[in-house]
Amino acid sequence: MAIDYDKLMAWKFDEVEQTYTQKDTMLYALGLGYGADPMDSGQLQYVYEKDLKAAPTMAVVLGYPGMWMRDPESGIDWVRLVHGEQGVTLHAPIPAEGTVLGRTRVTDIVDKGEGKGAIVYTEREIVDKASGNSLATLWQSTFCRADGGFGGSPESPRKPAAVPETGPDLTDTIATLPQAALIYRLSGDYNPLHAEPEIATAAGFDQPILHGLATFGVAGHSILKHCCDYDPSRLKGIQLRFSAPVYPGETIRTEIWQDGNVISFRSKSVERDVVVLNNGRAELN
Amino acid sequence: MAIDYDKLMAWKFDEVEQTYTQKDTMLYALGLGYGADPMDSGQLQYVYEKDLKAAPTMAVVLGYPGMWMRDPESGIDWVRLVHGEQGVTLHAPIPAEGTVLGRTRVTDIVDKGEGKGAIVYTEREIVDKASGNSLATLWQSTFCRADGGFGGSPESPRKPAAVPETGPDLTDTIATLPQAALIYRLSGDYNPLHAEPEIATAAGFDQPILHGLATFGVAGHSILKHCCDYDPSRLKGIQLRFSAPVYPGETIRTEIWQDGNVISFRSKSVERDVVVLNNGRAELN
Repeated sequence: MAIDYDKLMAWKFDEVEQTYTQKDTMLYALGLGYGADPMDSGQLQYVYEKDLKAAPTMAVVLGYPGMWMRDPESGIDWVRLVHGEQGVTLHAPIPAEGTVLGRTRVTDIVDKGEGKGAIVYTEREIVDKASGNSLATLWQSTFCRADGGFGGSPESPRKPAAVPETGPDLTDTIATLPQAALIYRLSGDYNPLHAEPEIATAAGFDQPILHGLATFGVAGHSILKHCCDYDPSRLKGIQLRFSAPVYPGETIRTEIWQDGNVISFRSKSVERDVVVLNNGRAELN
Repeated sequence: MAIDYDKLMAWKFDEVEQTYTQKDTMLYALGLGYGADPMDSGQLQYVYEKDLKAAPTMAVVLGYPGMWMRDPESGIDWVRLVHGEQGVTLHAPIPAEGTVLGRTRVTDIVDKGEGKGAIVYTEREIVDKASGNSLATLWQSTFCRADGGFGGSPESPRKPAAVPETGPDLTDTIATLPQAALIYRLSGDYNPLHAEPEIATAAGFDQPILHGLATFGVAGHSILKHCCDYDPSRLKGIQLRFSAPVYPGETIRTEIWQDGNVISFRSKSVERDVVVLNNGRAELN
């Protein structure tokens, strides 16, 4: 089965309603290294109920429509898809608890050609149910490796943000926990690839890999620490491209370039000296 | 206000009904080092939903009546109380999810004398609501440092289990996470002593301390690993005395003596060479 452009562009997503608690908010942050220094008052704001704040990157686990591409009607070979890029634009700080609505739509489908794959772009708006205010707009690209050649346009609607070729202005290092994937998955992405050794091995990995969005959250943590003084209202947006998997327990070093309110960044696995997140761009308020 | 023996012995506890999910069960275990080796299938049983098992020591976070001694009617100066000992007898494996009832009663009150404190013993039965079967019986002693001299008996109903004076038969070492207290408290004990630096300092500690019952769970993890081959049905009971606080991030080395189905143990903070759990006794089925 192949991608039907018009059908996929008109894909009907159910609105997702999600209620989350302070416990959920703390648990999300604990999987990303917040609280690793229990005496750091900046970190503590994200993992302790007194004046609790939600990490801005938590938007990615809210209102998620699930693995909709598994539906055979999508025409996508979901076994061969890869999360390509992720962006988040924040319109307001994410509340520490509440009920949100997630509204997802397909915005673009790029055809890289037969044997080269397709890229499906989706956008999700997260709305605070009580106030009706939009909290965040997310976009992501999904690289569907088996689905090129459906007769679509090869033009990408987005260009990856460039990272400067000079040395970074600053770096931050966060050690992920060996059990980071097991903690992170309790925020809702229970894909067994991140927990079950046999499934990870079958997928070609030595062991279960960390969720790409967990690494995204770790990089977000570094930016929040060094560029926002741990104030979530200062982060306007963040986006990046996933370039290599991370194994839980690896150390993530994020290289940061700052130009006024524009941050460029990329992240490496220190142990393997591999760039795992690239083309990172954040904007500050 | 002083302890009124008859009144405290007749203290009326509300039955506590608690529904817990697989997520709660995994979260409990993740705070105790289960999953620190994500390739270890023994550990994985406690942190992954496929054939999920509850760690036997999880009984301590089920059906808990809360800080009832804070009620002025108890006559206890709760600010000065210390958790002394904890015991758990398991009648059946704790289900990985379910609804339980907790029924607590005061069983003994010992008077160490004026200026020497009192010891209040409570017992809690945990019942599986659906089947009506008793899952576990817990007992604990609470040392009420300010409440001696109320005119009671100085005789303790329980003697601490002796630990052999020979070298241990085996030892196991588990590194607690720097954020272990922050993870563990999400299982229900939100005492700020374990999270807020200012409150820990006011209580005389350099930083927030780990929950005694978390250290109990770490020692239980070591016993489950080495004496039960990670099979929870093999553990019949476990008890110990809390002898010193643990700081999150410290390494806990548990010394184990095995005599048939009877295990003696104690645990030390490796970094400070201090015995933190003593008079440990476990029984195997």
